[in-house]
Amino acid sequence: MQFKEALKRVHRHIDDHFKEHLKQVQEYVRQPSISADGTGIHETAEMTKGFIEKLGGTAKTVPTDGWPVVYGELSSGAEKTLLIYGMYDVQPVEEEAGMWIVPPFDGKIVSTEPFGKCLVNRGAYNTKGPLRAFFNACQSILEMGGKLPVNLIFVIEGEEELGSIHLPQFVKKCQKELAKADAMFFSDAAQDMKGKVIMELGVKGIIYLDLICQGGKWGGPTKRGIHSSAAAWVDSPVWRLLWALTSMKSSDGKIVVKDFYENVTPPSPEEEELLKRLEKTFDEKTVLEEMDVLCFSDDLHGIEALKRYLYSPTINLDGIWAGHIGAGTKTVLPHVANAKVDIRLVPHMGTEETLQKFKNHLKKHGFADIKVVVHDCYPWSHVSVKEKVVQAMIQAYRAHGHEPEIWPWMGGSAPFYLFNQPPLSLPYVVGGLGHAGRAHSPNEYFVVEGIRDNEKSVATFLYEYAYGKEE
Amino acid sequence: MQFKEALKRVHRHIDDHFKEHLKQVQEYVRQPSISADGTGIHETAEMTKGFIEKLGGTAKTVPTDGWPVVYGELSSGAEKTLLIYGMYDVQPVEEEAGMWIVPPFDGKIVSTEPFGKCLVNRGAYNTKGPLRAFFNACQSILEMGGKLPVNLIFVIEGEEELGSIHLPQFVKKCQKELAKADAMFFSDAAQDMKGKVIMELGVKGIIYLDLICQGGKWGGPTKRGIHSSAAAWVDSPVWRLLWALTSMKSSDGKIVVKDFYENVTPPSPEEEELLKRLEKTFDEKTVLEEMDVLCFSDDLHGIEALKRYLYSPTINLDGIWAGHIGAGTKTVLPHVANAKVDIRLVPHMGTEETLQKFKNHLKKHGFADIKVVVHDCYPWSHVSVKEKVVQAMIQAYRAHGHEPEIWPWMGGSAPFYLFNQPPLSLPYVVGGLGHAGRAHSPNEYFVVEGIRDNEKSVATFLYEYAYGKEE
Repeated sequence: MQFKEALKRVHRHIDDHFKEHLKQVQEYVRQPSISADGTGIHETAEMTKGFIEKLGGTAKTVPTDGWPVVYGELSSGAEKTLLIYGMYDVQPVEEEAGMWIVPPFDGKIVSTEPFGKCLVNRGAYNTKGPLRAFFNACQSILEMGGKLPVNLIFVIEGEEELGSIHLPQFVKKCQKELAKADAMFFSDAAQDMKGKVIMELGVKGIIYLDLICQGGKWGGPTKRGIHSSAAAWVDSPVWRLLWALTSMKSSDGKIVVKDFYENVTPPSPEEEELLKRLEKTFDEKTVLEEMDVLCFSDDLHGIEALKRYLYSPTINLDGIWAGHIGAGTKTVLPHVANAKVDIRLVPHMGTEETLQKFKNHLKKHGFADIKVVVHDCYPWSHVSVKEKVVQAMIQAYRAHGHEPEIWPWMGGSAPFYLFNQPPLSLPYVVGGLGHAGRAHSPNEYFVVEGIRDNEKSVATFLYEYAYGKEE
Repeated sequence: MQFKEALKRVHRHIDDHFKEHLKQVQEYVRQPSISADGTGIHETAEMTKGFIEKLGGTAKTVPTDGWPVVYGELSSGAEKTLLIYGMYDVQPVEEEAGMWIVPPFDGKIVSTEPFGKCLVNRGAYNTKGPLRAFFNACQSILEMGGKLPVNLIFVIEGEEELGSIHLPQFVKKCQKELAKADAMFFSDAAQDMKGKVIMELGVKGIIYLDLICQGGKWGGPTKRGIHSSAAAWVDSPVWRLLWALTSMKSSDGKIVVKDFYENVTPPSPEEEELLKRLEKTFDEKTVLEEMDVLCFSDDLHGIEALKRYLYSPTINLDGIWAGHIGAGTKTVLPHVANAKVDIRLVPHMGTEETLQKFKNHLKKHGFADIKVVVHDCYPWSHVSVKEKVVQAMIQAYRAHGHEPEIWPWMGGSAPFYLFNQPPLSLPYVVGGLGHAGRAHSPNEYFVVEGIRDNEKSVATFLYEYAYGKEE
């Protein structure tokens, strides 16, 4: 029980220095790092490298064919080594103009109902806020005890929001170094708006692609939008794209791409067990409220809603555009129409296999001319609740008075397969206390007191992982 | 034959002063007048009013609930009075950024193949170029002969590109003044890229509307885009809009809104006669080339293509947008999706009746929540080839060595019904020599030598209308 005394001192240190810690978080999120257009990417990579060096580690920015990965090592001669996988990039903000209550990169603290003070900024939640809080926690451990309970390896990438396109390059290159790790950790703010801790053990796979339909041999204007009076005898790339899309998903929500659901598998016995427990505490009202949504698809409830969420693949339209956009009227027959599509994969759907089915569908339905540009494409991954690193996080939550609600999967995607699947085969956990919200939305936030709790909880997690007894 | 001598002197005057005339056209088109957002509208109205005063007429800007109408009178004690209906507004340019070879309001003269020198500017063709050329022609007549062969009434509106929303207000208000007119004239550049003169006797009706689909009681995010992982259990306003749209028009191009074609009527005997003649000279290759289109819908040719063009109603998608637009990837489930739709009406489809069928369709198919915002809505109109004002234009073309190709209808729309239908019941004609192109597109142009021919031809038309013998 010796480590619990050390931990108490660390928690006190976090309390005593929280003002400075909060400033560090604000400073980090204020630095834009939009991977979609490159804004502030290199500045943020350097800043992140500096955080590792400040802890006494060694760090470098490793170039890839895209944005660099920040790689670092911090050895404390401990028995175990934890790989800290993180991201320093954030989502774009441009189409949210006018919807932010404060500018998205001002790092403002805003009083809001019902959470009190919140840090409102792009990346406050997803995920520069939790990442910087992790560094703060390490700083407090070092300042109190002299060394960390585990060795750390840092892999902080700048392309997570682009689908981690070049992270495989990096992992391949640095495989030997990464193999020293025993488990992987991804920093998060895991409490919902009611304070309940949510823990998710699996991530879905994702394929993100653009569809581009332009006039050509099949018809339509080939080079420019033309006067819409021509629509009586000239075909439209916009209608064509809409017909292609709606041929894939019927208005009852079913995906009708041939064999799309072929390899989808039902929950495993361990997952069925977790689902039974989850059902008891699942608070659908809060989940809906957090999303500003009035009802689930098909007005589902309880276990049915959960199963739909966790075990359904999706074809989502992230964006679509063509022709005249905005105010007023312009009578034009556009020459090109664009859609941005993400496909989420559940077990055991394969990425290449699914992409092929998608492309075959276009071909079979006469839309072979529609261009498919794949941005990213990676598989799902999953960890057992029995893994030591997962149990350490559960113990940490309990030490702070929280019984986590465990979800066998999450709806989102992350490239954990790179660490979780062979050759590295690392178990992993995602977590940390605190409530934050509106990822990928205007007014993304992290509750200020949640940042404090987050720092304390990740310190506890590190000690639990190093010294804690398994249940 | 006296007037033909006067006309020769006018033509010579145009030649001698063409350099200044061209400058006048450049100056006019350089002044932006984008009715969609109001850019330069008032400046252009004042400028246009000045043109009428410069000719010795009286003019005023008449306020409406939208942009003002420039109204003017210029009496020469002639027997006949011509109502000059025109527009001083132009289409927006924003989504054409980067596609113009010169800035869209620089009034640049550019040498292009195969036309030689062209004025390249928004509005050069549609229709500030031809309108200013008409003023130039009048100026030359006045400077040579002292008075015009007809009295003129000017109605130059600033909302044509918005569907002439408030022109009915104006026409109602000034009905007494307008009733003095014997016919209406609309200035155009009527030669195709091969030099053939095209004359169109009818215009289609139009309904322009926005469709807005937002999350609500039916499902979907209600206030903001949310993380796209939610797409597994939250409905999408984007998919919903696409399903609504594709429920109206099937992938074979047929409009499947109930009774949509109900009142569509076949060509009249006079029109059948015109079609037979038109078929002989119809140059489909040039028509396609002018639009940068490789084939007509369903690979139609000849009379079949013509009939489809002239007698088919359309539902065109002028624009569509939702969610993340542009570069990179953003995984978002958007809360709102928008479409801009124009419906073209052929005889004898009614505007209100058609709009009602459209709305009923949405309701019947479960899309009653999709908001319909009507921007403009007006009926078709038509004139007989036998009308004196039409014959005067035909004679003018012949006097300049051109036999016009007469089309019973055009694909586009114009609010001629305001003058053509009771109580005014004016016959009308649209015309003028010269080739111009790319209306509503980047690099809109008017061939410089065509401007000269245009001025001469409209002078001829005025004399033919005043003094010419009917065939």
